[in-house]
Amino acid sequence: MSNRHGTTSRFTITSINGTQSKHKSDQLAVEEPLEIRAASAKDFNGTYHSLAVTMRTPGKDFELATGFLFSESVIQGRDDIREIAYCVPRDELQQFNIVNILLSENSVFDPAILSRNVYINSSCGICGKASLELVRQACAINPLGDFRISQDYLAALPEKLFRAQSTFSRTGGLHAVGLFDTSGNLLKSFEDIGRHNALDKLVGDQILNGFMPLSNTVLLLSGRASFELIQKAILAGIPMIASIGAPSSLAVELAREYGITLVGFLREDRYNVYAGEQRLR
Amino acid sequence: MSNRHGTTSRFTITSINGTQSKHKSDQLAVEEPLEIRAASAKDFNGTYHSLAVTMRTPGKDFELATGFLFSESVIQGRDDIREIAYCVPRDELQQFNIVNILLSENSVFDPAILSRNVYINSSCGICGKASLELVRQACAINPLGDFRISQDYLAALPEKLFRAQSTFSRTGGLHAVGLFDTSGNLLKSFEDIGRHNALDKLVGDQILNGFMPLSNTVLLLSGRASFELIQKAILAGIPMIASIGAPSSLAVELAREYGITLVGFLREDRYNVYAGEQRLR
Repeated sequence: MSNRHGTTSRFTITSINGTQSKHKSDQLAVEEPLEIRAASAKDFNGTYHSLAVTMRTPGKDFELATGFLFSESVIQGRDDIREIAYCVPRDELQQFNIVNILLSENSVFDPAILSRNVYINSSCGICGKASLELVRQACAINPLGDFRISQDYLAALPEKLFRAQSTFSRTGGLHAVGLFDTSGNLLKSFEDIGRHNALDKLVGDQILNGFMPLSNTVLLLSGRASFELIQKAILAGIPMIASIGAPSSLAVELAREYGITLVGFLREDRYNVYAGEQRLR
Repeated sequence: MSNRHGTTSRFTITSINGTQSKHKSDQLAVEEPLEIRAASAKDFNGTYHSLAVTMRTPGKDFELATGFLFSESVIQGRDDIREIAYCVPRDELQQFNIVNILLSENSVFDPAILSRNVYINSSCGICGKASLELVRQACAINPLGDFRISQDYLAALPEKLFRAQSTFSRTGGLHAVGLFDTSGNLLKSFEDIGRHNALDKLVGDQILNGFMPLSNTVLLLSGRASFELIQKAILAGIPMIASIGAPSSLAVELAREYGITLVGFLREDRYNVYAGEQRLR
């Protein structure tokens, strides 16, 4: 392999085609663990608390860590972050696999009460209803944009995201997410081997650039729309989500609950509207 | 929606095709959280410890919980389980969303030291190398089958799994995994909205039926092959993995490290061999 910390990595493999067999160099999506650590500047003694390890494609790691902390309600916005840095390496291999986030002095950070733990241990147990309730509590509801977009707008989205992707990611199986303004301009796109990571990178980028909440934007997902992706979008204030693939049952329920527009199976002028039809002309 | 706890659920949606718009009933993959709880019979006082919440497609939940505990090294096999049951409901909606596993008296279970925590907090930090090391330590290496299979065997696998899947899952985006014997017979297949869950269900099923380790089997994945899927397969003793999609860099490294045969982009008689060529005739 060549560069472990790029988006792709080269391996010598055997390619079989019928009776033909040949050795060749093949490009693969890099998957590496990223450990996200945080500490508050208030009582900082040099120790960071490990919050999560996610298997991700390296690149835009600070954005990923920021988006993750936002989704987990550890931070509310850019002002809660004082510093982001890779952990000082003791081992060259892990140099870019640990991100430390120092939170502002006035941020509220209790490593013992992280939202994921609250989620897991919620005394009412876990069910679809409880999950929906949790989102309701966790997010300070952002004002949702009440724009209306046309069918032509929707039809053009997949091609715009496709053109922004690298050739490799289109063929080799990276997930992509794109954020569009209400005129149909692609604002930003991100790719990752994990669909949640791609969206965390996008949201983290918007937070770090001071563009929150994302009330007047449309999110395009290259794959399927799961509960967690809708949840992350809602927390960021995104009022409309379109996916190339299918949504899950809970994704649709969540979108309906929050007045989010959810489009699925988007293929130019053919698509399904699962929720929030009022934003479509 | 109809049955929340089936594999699919019906929603009334709007389907757009050019200038045509119609309301129709649409089938979606059900996504619901499953909380997995465990306790040891040794000191059981009626309280289970919450280990994880996973977003899964309902069905085969006991198999999923069993496979998950095995992957996390909480159990070593069937003998470590005394009882599996859904949590007694206080709320009808959550009736099938919590699984309690009572571990045998002689099982070693310390809820404070779960492998995931060990993984997150490992003092050497996290990197590809550390992850590989962790697998090495965590799994008592099973003897890997040294069978050899033919090109015809490989070419026939996708169609066999395809035929075992429901029409819905082929079109609607459920992940599927299939386990084959060395003669090419499909032993079992499972589907889930989460690829890890599908494999956990398969491994859990094999554990509960007393078929471990899976030394003389071949695993087929309907999608991509990630690090975690290879890790789960190795822990179950599966020596050969074929995927319809691409493997990640770390999946290939892990397979090479353990002598696992890894095939990707399997399309009848066209495919790539990423590791362990010695099992292919």
